[in-house]
Amino acid sequence: MKISVVLANPQLGANIGAAARAMCNLGFLDLRLVNPRDGWPNSEAERNAAGALDIMKAVQVFSSLPDALAGSQYVLATTARPRDMVKPVFSPQRAVDKFGAKSGGSSGIEQLSVVFGAERTGLTNEELSYCHGILTLPTREDFASFNLAQSVLLVLWELKALCKDLPANAIHDADESVDADSDDLARHSDLTVFFSRFEALLAEASFFKSEESRPHVVRNIRNMLLRCEPTNQEIRTFQGIISALSGIKGDD
Amino acid sequence: MKISVVLANPQLGANIGAAARAMCNLGFLDLRLVNPRDGWPNSEAERNAAGALDIMKAVQVFSSLPDALAGSQYVLATTARPRDMVKPVFSPQRAVDKFGAKSGGSSGIEQLSVVFGAERTGLTNEELSYCHGILTLPTREDFASFNLAQSVLLVLWELKALCKDLPANAIHDADESVDADSDDLARHSDLTVFFSRFEALLAEASFFKSEESRPHVVRNIRNMLLRCEPTNQEIRTFQGIISALSGIKGDD
Repeated sequence: MKISVVLANPQLGANIGAAARAMCNLGFLDLRLVNPRDGWPNSEAERNAAGALDIMKAVQVFSSLPDALAGSQYVLATTARPRDMVKPVFSPQRAVDKFGAKSGGSSGIEQLSVVFGAERTGLTNEELSYCHGILTLPTREDFASFNLAQSVLLVLWELKALCKDLPANAIHDADESVDADSDDLARHSDLTVFFSRFEALLAEASFFKSEESRPHVVRNIRNMLLRCEPTNQEIRTFQGIISALSGIKGDD
Repeated sequence: MKISVVLANPQLGANIGAAARAMCNLGFLDLRLVNPRDGWPNSEAERNAAGALDIMKAVQVFSSLPDALAGSQYVLATTARPRDMVKPVFSPQRAVDKFGAKSGGSSGIEQLSVVFGAERTGLTNEELSYCHGILTLPTREDFASFNLAQSVLLVLWELKALCKDLPANAIHDADESVDADSDDLARHSDLTVFFSRFEALLAEASFFKSEESRPHVVRNIRNMLLRCEPTNQEIRTFQGIISALSGIKGDD
Protein backbone atom coordinates (compact mmCIF):
# COMPACT_ATOMS: atom_id res chain seq x y z
CA MET A 1 0.00 0.00 0.00
CA LYS A 2 1.11 3.55 -0.74
CA ILE A 3 0.38 6.29 1.78
CA SER A 4 0.35 10.00 0.95
CA VAL A 5 0.47 12.76 3.54
CA VAL A 6 -1.70 15.75 2.66
CA LEU A 7 -1.33 18.99 4.63
CA ALA A 8 -4.38 21.18 4.09
CA ASN A 9 -3.65 24.91 4.41
CA PRO A 10 -0.51 24.54 6.52
CA GLN A 11 0.65 27.84 8.03
CA LEU A 12 4.26 27.44 9.15
CA GLY A 13 7.09 26.36 6.88
CA ALA A 14 8.87 25.05 9.97
CA ASN A 15 6.07 22.55 10.54
CA ILE A 16 6.05 21.44 6.91
CA GLY A 17 9.79 20.84 7.08
CA ALA A 18 9.56 18.97 10.38
CA ALA A 19 6.76 16.83 8.96
CA ALA A 20 8.90 16.03 5.91
CA ARG A 21 11.81 15.05 8.14
CA ALA A 22 9.59 12.73 10.20
CA MET A 23 8.13 11.15 7.06
CA CYS A 24 11.57 10.52 5.65
CA ASN A 25 12.83 9.06 8.95
CA LEU A 26 10.16 6.40 8.61
CA GLY A 27 10.51 5.98 4.84
CA PHE A 28 7.37 7.79 3.61
CA LEU A 29 8.20 9.94 0.60
CA ASP A 30 4.92 11.36 -0.77
CA LEU A 31 4.04 14.78 0.70
CA ARG A 32 1.32 17.00 -0.76
CA LEU A 33 0.42 20.54 0.22
CA VAL A 34 -2.88 22.32 -0.33
CA ASN A 35 -2.48 26.11 -0.36
CA PRO A 36 0.49 26.47 1.99
CA ARG A 37 0.09 29.94 3.52
CA ASP A 38 3.67 31.07 2.95
CA GLY A 39 4.08 29.56 -0.52
CA TRP A 40 6.36 26.84 -1.80
CA PRO A 41 9.31 26.32 -1.84
CA ASN A 42 9.91 27.72 1.63
CA SER A 43 13.26 28.33 3.32
CA GLU A 44 11.98 27.59 6.84
CA ALA A 45 10.67 24.25 5.60
CA GLU A 46 14.01 23.44 4.02
CA ARG A 47 15.87 24.28 7.20
CA ASN A 48 13.64 22.08 9.36
CA ALA A 49 13.58 19.21 6.89
CA ALA A 50 17.28 18.58 7.57
CA GLY A 51 17.82 17.22 4.08
CA ALA A 52 14.64 15.15 3.82
CA LEU A 53 13.33 17.12 0.84
CA ASP A 54 16.30 15.95 -1.23
CA ILE A 55 15.47 12.32 -0.54
CA MET A 56 11.69 12.45 -0.94
CA LYS A 57 9.61 12.68 -4.09
CA ALA A 58 9.22 16.33 -5.11
CA VAL A 59 6.55 17.86 -2.88
CA GLN A 60 3.36 18.50 -4.87
CA VAL A 61 1.32 21.65 -4.30
CA PHE A 62 -2.41 21.81 -5.06
CA SER A 63 -4.99 24.55 -4.96
CA SER A 64 -7.80 22.30 -3.74
CA LEU A 65 -8.07 19.31 -1.44
CA PRO A 66 -9.89 17.07 -3.97
CA ASP A 67 -7.05 17.64 -6.45
CA ALA A 68 -4.52 16.47 -3.86
CA LEU A 69 -6.63 13.37 -3.19
CA ALA A 70 -7.23 12.49 -6.84
CA GLY A 71 -5.51 9.09 -6.88
CA SER A 72 -6.62 7.97 -3.41
CA GLN A 73 -8.99 5.12 -2.82
CA TYR A 74 -9.45 5.87 0.85
CA VAL A 75 -8.94 9.12 2.74
CA LEU A 76 -8.45 9.41 6.49
CA ALA A 77 -8.86 12.77 8.20
CA THR A 78 -6.91 13.33 11.39
CA THR A 79 -8.68 15.26 14.09
CA ALA A 80 -8.83 15.20 17.85
CA ARG A 81 -12.27 16.75 17.73
CA PRO A 82 -14.95 14.46 16.34
CA ARG A 83 -17.68 16.63 14.78
CA ASP A 84 -21.33 16.03 14.42
CA MET A 85 -21.02 14.09 11.19
CA VAL A 86 -21.50 10.40 10.67
CA LYS A 87 -18.13 8.95 9.64
CA PRO A 88 -16.30 5.81 10.65
CA VAL A 89 -13.81 6.69 13.40
CA PHE A 90 -10.57 4.76 13.72
CA SER A 91 -7.98 4.38 16.40
CA PRO A 92 -4.54 3.76 14.82
CA GLN A 93 -4.78 0.07 15.66
CA ARG A 94 -8.20 -0.28 14.13
CA ALA A 95 -7.01 1.42 10.96
CA VAL A 96 -4.16 -1.05 10.67
CA ASP A 97 -6.57 -3.92 11.24
CA LYS A 98 -8.98 -2.67 8.59
CA PHE A 99 -6.57 -1.64 5.87
CA GLY A 100 -4.08 -4.37 6.56
CA ALA A 101 -6.74 -6.96 5.81
CA LYS A 102 -7.84 -5.14 2.68
CA SER A 103 -4.47 -4.18 1.31
CA GLY A 104 -2.23 -6.10 -1.01
CA GLY A 105 -2.83 -7.16 -4.58
CA SER A 106 -5.47 -5.77 -6.87
CA SER A 107 -8.32 -6.65 -4.58
CA GLY A 108 -7.88 -3.84 -2.09
CA ILE A 109 -6.77 -0.32 -1.35
CA GLU A 110 -3.49 0.58 -2.97
CA GLN A 111 -3.47 4.30 -2.31
CA LEU A 112 -4.37 5.76 1.09
CA SER A 113 -4.19 9.46 1.93
CA VAL A 114 -4.02 10.94 5.40
CA VAL A 115 -5.12 14.57 5.67
CA PHE A 116 -3.96 17.02 8.35
CA GLY A 117 -5.59 20.43 8.88
CA ALA A 118 -4.13 23.87 9.51
CA GLU A 119 -2.23 24.38 12.76
CA ARG A 120 -4.69 26.61 14.59
CA THR A 121 -8.01 25.51 13.25
CA GLY A 122 -7.64 21.88 12.19
CA LEU A 123 -9.80 20.53 9.39
CA THR A 124 -12.96 22.37 8.41
CA ASN A 125 -16.25 20.56 7.96
CA GLU A 126 -15.90 21.19 4.24
CA GLU A 127 -12.49 19.48 4.22
CA LEU A 128 -13.80 16.62 6.37
CA SER A 129 -16.56 16.03 3.88
CA TYR A 130 -13.97 14.88 1.32
CA CYS A 131 -12.69 12.17 3.65
CA HIS A 132 -14.02 8.65 4.12
CA GLY A 133 -13.05 8.23 7.76
CA ILE A 134 -11.56 9.89 10.81
CA LEU A 135 -8.36 8.84 12.56
CA THR A 136 -7.97 9.88 16.20
CA LEU A 137 -4.98 9.63 18.50
CA PRO A 138 -5.41 9.16 22.24
CA THR A 139 -4.30 12.27 24.15
CA ARG A 140 -4.67 13.98 27.46
CA GLU A 141 -8.19 15.36 27.38
CA ASP A 142 -7.35 18.86 28.60
CA PHE A 143 -4.29 19.16 26.32
CA ALA A 144 -5.28 17.34 23.18
CA SER A 145 -3.77 19.34 20.33
CA PHE A 146 -0.58 17.90 18.85
CA ASN A 147 1.87 20.01 16.94
CA LEU A 148 1.26 19.38 13.22
CA ALA A 149 4.55 17.61 12.54
CA GLN A 150 4.19 15.56 15.73
CA SER A 151 0.79 14.42 14.57
CA VAL A 152 2.19 13.40 11.16
CA LEU A 153 4.94 11.43 12.87
CA LEU A 154 2.62 9.49 15.21
CA VAL A 155 0.10 8.65 12.52
CA LEU A 156 2.77 7.33 10.14
CA TRP A 157 4.49 5.48 12.95
CA GLU A 158 1.25 3.63 13.58
CA LEU A 159 0.40 3.08 9.91
CA LYS A 160 3.83 1.89 8.84
CA ALA A 161 2.71 -1.66 9.56
CA LEU A 162 0.60 -1.28 6.40
CA CYS A 163 3.63 -0.64 4.17
CA LYS A 164 5.77 -3.71 4.00
CA ASP A 165 8.16 -2.16 1.50
CA LEU A 166 9.32 0.69 3.75
CA PRO A 167 13.09 0.86 4.15
CA ALA A 168 12.63 1.47 7.88
CA ASN A 169 11.30 -1.93 8.76
CA ALA A 170 14.54 -3.35 10.09
CA ILE A 171 14.75 -3.09 13.84
CA HIS A 172 18.15 -3.77 15.30
CA ASP A 173 18.20 -7.18 16.81
CA ALA A 174 18.13 -6.66 20.53
CA ASP A 175 20.68 -8.37 22.69
CA GLU A 176 19.29 -10.46 25.44
CA SER A 177 19.69 -8.87 28.83
CA VAL A 178 19.61 -10.86 32.01
CA ASP A 179 16.87 -9.82 34.39
CA ALA A 180 17.84 -9.41 38.01
CA ASP A 181 15.60 -11.76 39.95
CA SER A 182 15.77 -9.68 43.10
CA ASP A 183 13.03 -7.38 44.26
CA ASP A 184 15.00 -4.33 45.21
CA LEU A 185 16.85 -2.61 42.36
CA ALA A 186 19.33 0.08 43.39
CA ARG A 187 18.53 3.71 42.69
CA HIS A 188 20.87 5.64 40.47
CA SER A 189 22.00 7.91 43.30
CA ASP A 190 23.18 4.90 45.31
CA LEU A 191 25.07 3.67 42.27
CA THR A 192 26.68 7.08 41.82
CA VAL A 193 27.82 7.15 45.43
CA PHE A 194 29.22 3.69 44.99
CA PHE A 195 31.00 4.49 41.73
CA SER A 196 32.60 7.61 43.19
CA ARG A 197 33.93 5.75 46.15
CA PHE A 198 35.00 2.81 43.99
CA GLU A 199 36.83 5.05 41.56
CA ALA A 200 38.58 6.97 44.30
CA LEU A 201 39.75 3.77 45.90
CA LEU A 202 41.00 2.45 42.59
CA ALA A 203 42.95 5.64 42.02
CA GLU A 204 44.37 5.46 45.51
CA ALA A 205 45.45 1.92 44.78
CA SER A 206 47.22 3.08 41.57
CA PHE A 207 44.87 0.92 39.57
CA PHE A 208 44.84 3.32 36.61
CA LYS A 209 47.87 3.00 34.37
CA SER A 210 47.63 6.66 33.33
CA GLU A 211 45.39 9.69 33.87
CA GLU A 212 44.85 9.60 30.10
CA SER A 213 43.28 6.15 30.06
CA ARG A 214 41.35 6.66 33.30
CA PRO A 215 38.07 8.02 31.88
CA HIS A 216 37.87 5.17 29.39
CA VAL A 217 38.50 2.54 32.03
CA VAL A 218 35.98 4.14 34.41
CA ARG A 219 33.31 4.11 31.72
CA ASN A 220 33.92 0.46 30.99
CA ILE A 221 33.53 -0.38 34.64
CA ARG A 222 30.31 1.61 34.95
CA ASN A 223 28.92 -0.06 31.84
CA MET A 224 29.72 -3.47 33.16
CA LEU A 225 28.22 -2.85 36.59
CA LEU A 226 25.07 -1.23 35.22
CA ARG A 227 24.55 -4.20 32.94
CA CYS A 228 24.19 -6.28 36.08
CA GLU A 229 21.22 -4.17 37.18
CA PRO A 230 22.44 -4.43 40.76
CA THR A 231 20.07 -4.51 43.69
CA ASN A 232 20.56 -2.51 46.86
CA GLN A 233 21.81 -5.60 48.60
CA GLU A 234 24.35 -6.19 45.83
CA ILE A 235 25.59 -2.63 46.06
CA ARG A 236 26.03 -3.05 49.80
CA THR A 237 27.92 -6.21 49.06
CA PHE A 238 30.13 -4.42 46.54
CA GLN A 239 30.79 -1.68 49.08
CA GLY A 240 31.82 -4.34 51.53
CA ILE A 241 34.08 -5.94 48.94
CA ILE A 242 35.93 -2.78 48.00
CA SER A 243 36.20 -1.79 51.64
CA ALA A 244 37.67 -5.16 52.42
CA LEU A 245 40.04 -5.06 49.47
CA SER A 246 41.23 -1.60 50.44
CA GLY A 247 41.73 -2.64 54.03
CA ILE A 248 39.03 -0.30 55.34
CA LYS A 249 36.75 -1.34 58.18
CA GLY A 250 33.31 -1.14 56.52
CA ASP A 251 29.92 -1.42 58.20
CA ASP A 252 29.24 -4.88 56.90
CA MET B 1 5.65 3.13 36.95
CA LYS B 2 6.89 6.70 36.72
CA ILE B 3 8.86 7.81 33.67
CA SER B 4 11.11 10.87 33.59
CA VAL B 5 12.40 12.47 30.41
CA VAL B 6 15.97 13.73 30.71
CA LEU B 7 17.39 15.99 27.99
CA ALA B 8 21.20 16.04 28.20
CA ASN B 9 22.75 19.28 26.95
CA PRO B 10 19.81 20.33 24.78
CA GLN B 11 20.66 23.21 22.45
CA LEU B 12 17.43 24.74 21.18
CA GLY B 13 14.69 26.11 23.42
CA ALA B 14 12.23 25.38 20.61
CA ASN B 15 12.99 21.67 20.86
CA ILE B 16 12.66 21.66 24.65
CA GLY B 17 9.28 23.34 24.33
CA ALA B 18 8.10 20.96 21.61
CA ALA B 19 9.23 18.01 23.72
CA ALA B 20 7.28 19.37 26.69
CA ARG B 21 4.18 19.78 24.55
CA ALA B 22 4.44 16.19 23.28
CA MET B 23 4.97 14.87 26.81
CA CYS B 24 1.93 16.71 28.05
CA ASN B 25 -0.21 15.53 25.11
CA LEU B 26 0.42 11.99 26.29
CA GLY B 27 0.22 12.78 30.01
CA PHE B 28 3.89 12.64 31.01
CA LEU B 29 4.75 15.50 33.35
CA ASP B 30 8.34 15.01 34.59
CA LEU B 31 10.93 16.78 32.40
CA ARG B 32 14.54 17.26 33.49
CA LEU B 33 17.26 19.25 31.76
CA VAL B 34 21.00 18.85 32.10
CA ASN B 35 22.89 22.02 31.20
CA PRO B 36 20.52 23.49 28.62
CA ARG B 37 22.72 25.59 26.34
CA ASP B 38 20.53 28.68 26.36
CA GLY B 39 19.62 28.56 30.04
CA TRP B 40 16.30 28.09 31.77
CA PRO B 41 13.61 29.43 31.70
CA ASN B 42 13.67 30.04 27.97
CA SER B 43 11.17 32.07 25.95
CA GLU B 44 11.46 29.91 22.81
CA ALA B 45 10.70 26.86 24.90
CA GLU B 46 7.65 28.54 26.39
CA ARG B 47 6.36 29.53 22.96
CA ASN B 48 6.71 26.02 21.56
CA ALA B 49 5.29 24.33 24.64
CA ALA B 50 1.87 25.84 23.85
CA GLY B 51 0.92 25.92 27.52
CA ALA B 52 2.32 22.53 28.50
CA LEU B 53 4.77 24.00 31.02
CA ASP B 54 1.86 25.33 33.08
CA ILE B 55 0.35 21.86 33.34
CA MET B 56 3.52 19.84 33.99
CA LYS B 57 5.59 19.56 37.12
CA ALA B 58 8.12 22.40 37.28
CA VAL B 59 10.99 21.49 34.96
CA GLN B 60 14.11 20.60 36.96
CA VAL B 61 17.55 21.71 35.81
CA PHE B 62 20.73 19.84 36.77
CA SER B 63 24.40 20.43 36.20
CA SER B 64 25.26 16.76 35.75
CA LEU B 65 23.53 13.73 34.26
CA PRO B 66 23.92 11.54 37.37
CA ASP B 67 22.16 14.23 39.43
CA ALA B 68 19.22 14.18 37.03
CA LEU B 69 19.05 10.39 37.29
CA ALA B 70 19.35 10.21 41.06
CA GLY B 71 15.98 8.59 41.79
CA SER B 72 15.93 6.26 38.79
CA GLN B 73 16.14 2.52 39.05
CA TYR B 74 16.62 1.97 35.37
CA VAL B 75 17.95 4.35 32.73
CA LEU B 76 17.40 3.97 29.00
CA ALA B 77 19.56 5.93 26.57
CA THR B 78 18.04 6.74 23.20
CA THR B 79 20.37 6.56 20.26
CA ALA B 80 20.15 5.49 16.65
CA ARG B 81 23.85 4.73 16.66
CA PRO B 82 24.78 1.72 18.75
CA ARG B 83 28.39 2.16 19.91
CA ASP B 84 31.01 -0.37 20.64
CA MET B 85 29.90 -0.89 24.21
CA VAL B 86 28.18 -3.90 25.64
CA LYS B 87 24.70 -2.81 26.77
CA PRO B 88 21.31 -4.40 26.40
CA VAL B 89 19.58 -2.92 23.35
CA PHE B 90 15.79 -2.61 23.28
CA SER B 91 13.26 -2.03 20.59
CA PRO B 92 10.26 -0.13 22.02
CA GLN B 93 8.21 -3.31 22.12
CA ARG B 94 10.90 -5.23 23.94
CA ALA B 95 11.21 -2.45 26.50
CA VAL B 96 7.50 -2.63 27.17
CA ASP B 97 7.71 -6.40 27.50
CA LYS B 98 10.61 -6.21 29.91
CA PHE B 99 9.50 -3.35 32.12
CA GLY B 100 5.82 -4.17 31.92
CA ALA B 101 6.51 -7.56 33.48
CA LYS B 102 8.73 -6.08 36.14
CA SER B 103 6.72 -3.02 36.99
CA GLY B 104 3.99 -2.60 39.57
CA GLY B 105 4.19 -2.92 43.29
CA SER B 106 7.33 -2.82 45.38
CA SER B 107 8.92 -5.74 43.59
CA GLY B 108 9.94 -3.93 40.43
CA ILE B 109 11.06 -0.74 38.78
CA GLU B 110 9.08 2.26 39.92
CA GLN B 111 11.17 5.00 38.39
CA LEU B 112 12.43 4.79 34.80
CA SER B 113 14.38 7.57 33.09
CA VAL B 114 14.81 8.00 29.37
CA VAL B 115 17.80 10.11 28.32
CA PHE B 116 18.07 12.05 25.05
CA GLY B 117 21.32 13.62 23.83
CA ALA B 118 22.11 17.00 22.30
CA GLU B 119 20.58 17.74 18.88
CA ARG B 120 23.72 17.59 16.77
CA THR B 121 25.87 15.11 18.57
CA GLY B 122 23.55 12.77 20.43
CA LEU B 123 24.73 11.11 23.62
CA THR B 124 28.44 10.94 24.35
CA ASN B 125 30.08 7.71 25.45
CA GLU B 126 30.48 9.30 28.86
CA GLU B 127 26.74 9.96 29.05
CA LEU B 128 25.93 6.47 27.75
CA SER B 129 28.03 4.99 30.50
CA TYR B 130 25.47 6.23 33.06
CA CYS B 131 22.67 4.32 31.37
CA HIS B 132 21.66 0.70 31.87
CA GLY B 133 20.34 0.07 28.40
CA ILE B 134 19.84 1.50 24.93
CA LEU B 135 16.50 2.13 23.26
CA THR B 136 16.48 2.29 19.46
CA LEU B 137 13.73 3.30 17.09
CA PRO B 138 13.51 1.77 13.63
CA THR B 139 14.29 4.39 10.95
CA ARG B 140 15.35 4.70 7.37
CA GLU B 141 19.01 3.73 7.43
CA ASP B 142 20.28 6.65 5.36
CA PHE B 143 18.15 9.20 7.23
CA ALA B 144 18.12 7.97 10.79
CA SER B 145 18.28 11.09 12.94
CA PHE B 146 14.98 12.20 14.46
CA ASN B 147 14.39 15.72 15.61
CA LEU B 148 14.81 15.78 19.40
CA ALA B 149 11.16 16.49 20.22
CA GLN B 150 10.00 13.91 17.66
CA SER B 151 12.18 11.32 19.32
CA VAL B 152 10.73 12.16 22.75
CA LEU B 153 7.22 11.83 21.35
CA LEU B 154 7.77 8.42 19.74
CA VAL B 155 9.53 6.94 22.73
CA LEU B 156 6.81 8.05 25.14
CA TRP B 157 4.11 6.94 22.75
CA GLU B 158 5.60 3.46 22.83
CA LEU B 159 6.27 3.43 26.58
CA LYS B 160 2.89 4.77 27.63
CA ALA B 161 1.67 1.18 27.88
CA LEU B 162 3.85 1.00 31.00
CA CYS B 163 1.96 3.80 32.76
CA LYS B 164 -1.55 2.71 33.52
CA ASP B 165 -2.39 5.91 35.38
CA LEU B 166 -1.85 8.25 32.41
CA PRO B 167 -4.85 10.47 31.69
CA ALA B 168 -4.44 9.80 27.96
CA ASN B 169 -5.46 6.19 27.94
CA ALA B 170 -9.00 6.64 26.68
CA ILE B 171 -9.38 6.05 22.97
CA HIS B 172 -12.63 7.17 21.46
CA ASP B 173 -14.85 4.21 20.76
CA ALA B 174 -14.75 3.64 17.04
CA ASP B 175 -17.94 3.24 15.08
CA GLU B 176 -18.20 0.11 13.03
CA SER B 177 -17.81 0.74 9.34
CA VAL B 178 -19.05 -1.66 6.74
CA ASP B 179 -16.36 -3.00 4.42
CA ALA B 180 -17.14 -3.02 0.72
CA ASP B 181 -16.83 -6.62 -0.43
CA SER B 182 -15.99 -5.64 -3.96
CA ASP B 183 -12.51 -5.71 -5.40
CA ASP B 184 -12.34 -2.36 -7.10
CA LEU B 185 -12.65 0.69 -4.86
CA ALA B 186 -13.15 3.98 -6.65
CA ARG B 187 -10.34 6.50 -6.71
CA HIS B 188 -10.99 9.90 -5.18
CA SER B 189 -10.76 11.65 -8.56
CA ASP B 190 -13.59 9.49 -9.92
CA LEU B 191 -15.65 10.34 -6.88
CA THR B 192 -14.96 14.04 -7.37
CA VAL B 193 -16.06 13.88 -10.99
CA PHE B 194 -19.17 12.09 -9.93
CA PHE B 195 -19.96 14.51 -7.10
CA SER B 196 -19.52 17.52 -9.37
CA ARG B 197 -21.88 16.13 -11.96
CA PHE B 198 -24.31 14.96 -9.31
CA GLU B 199 -24.37 18.36 -7.62
CA ALA B 200 -24.82 20.23 -10.90
CA LEU B 201 -27.74 18.01 -11.83
CA LEU B 202 -29.30 18.48 -8.42
CA ALA B 203 -29.01 22.25 -8.78
CA GLU B 204 -30.50 22.09 -12.26
CA ALA B 205 -33.36 20.12 -10.85
CA SER B 206 -33.93 22.81 -8.17
CA PHE B 207 -33.15 20.27 -5.51
CA PHE B 208 -31.55 22.84 -3.19
CA LYS B 209 -34.05 24.86 -1.20
CA SER B 210 -31.66 27.84 -1.02
CA GLU B 211 -28.12 28.78 -2.02
CA GLU B 212 -27.51 29.31 1.71
CA SER B 213 -28.23 25.73 2.68
CA ARG B 214 -26.57 24.22 -0.40
CA PRO B 215 -23.00 23.73 0.97
CA HIS B 216 -24.34 22.01 4.05
CA VAL B 217 -26.56 19.68 2.04
CA VAL B 218 -23.75 18.89 -0.40
CA ARG B 219 -21.41 17.98 2.45
CA ASN B 220 -23.98 15.67 3.96
CA ILE B 221 -24.39 13.90 0.65
CA ARG B 222 -20.65 13.52 0.18
CA ASN B 223 -20.28 12.16 3.70
CA MET B 224 -23.01 9.64 3.15
CA LEU B 225 -21.66 8.44 -0.18
CA LEU B 226 -18.07 8.22 1.05
CA ARG B 227 -19.25 6.16 3.98
CA CYS B 228 -20.36 3.56 1.44
CA GLU B 229 -16.79 3.24 0.13
CA PRO B 230 -18.14 2.88 -3.38
CA THR B 231 -16.43 0.75 -5.99
CA ASN B 232 -15.86 1.85 -9.57
CA GLN B 233 -18.78 -0.27 -10.68
CA GLU B 234 -21.01 1.36 -8.08
CA ILE B 235 -19.96 4.83 -9.20
CA ARG B 236 -20.79 3.89 -12.79
CA THR B 237 -24.12 2.66 -11.55
CA PHE B 238 -24.73 5.93 -9.69
CA GLN B 239 -23.82 7.85 -12.84
CA GLY B 240 -26.35 5.79 -14.73
CA ILE B 241 -28.98 6.43 -12.08
CA ILE B 242 -28.60 10.20 -12.04
CA SER B 243 -28.44 10.27 -15.82
CA ALA B 244 -31.61 8.30 -15.99
CA LEU B 245 -33.35 10.44 -13.37
CA SER B 246 -32.35 13.60 -15.20
CA GLY B 247 -33.56 12.23 -18.51
CA ILE B 248 -30.05 12.20 -20.03
CA LYS B 249 -28.98 9.40 -22.33
CA GLY B 250 -25.99 7.96 -20.46
CA ASP B 251 -23.52 5.35 -21.73
CA ASP B 252 -24.91 2.56 -19.58
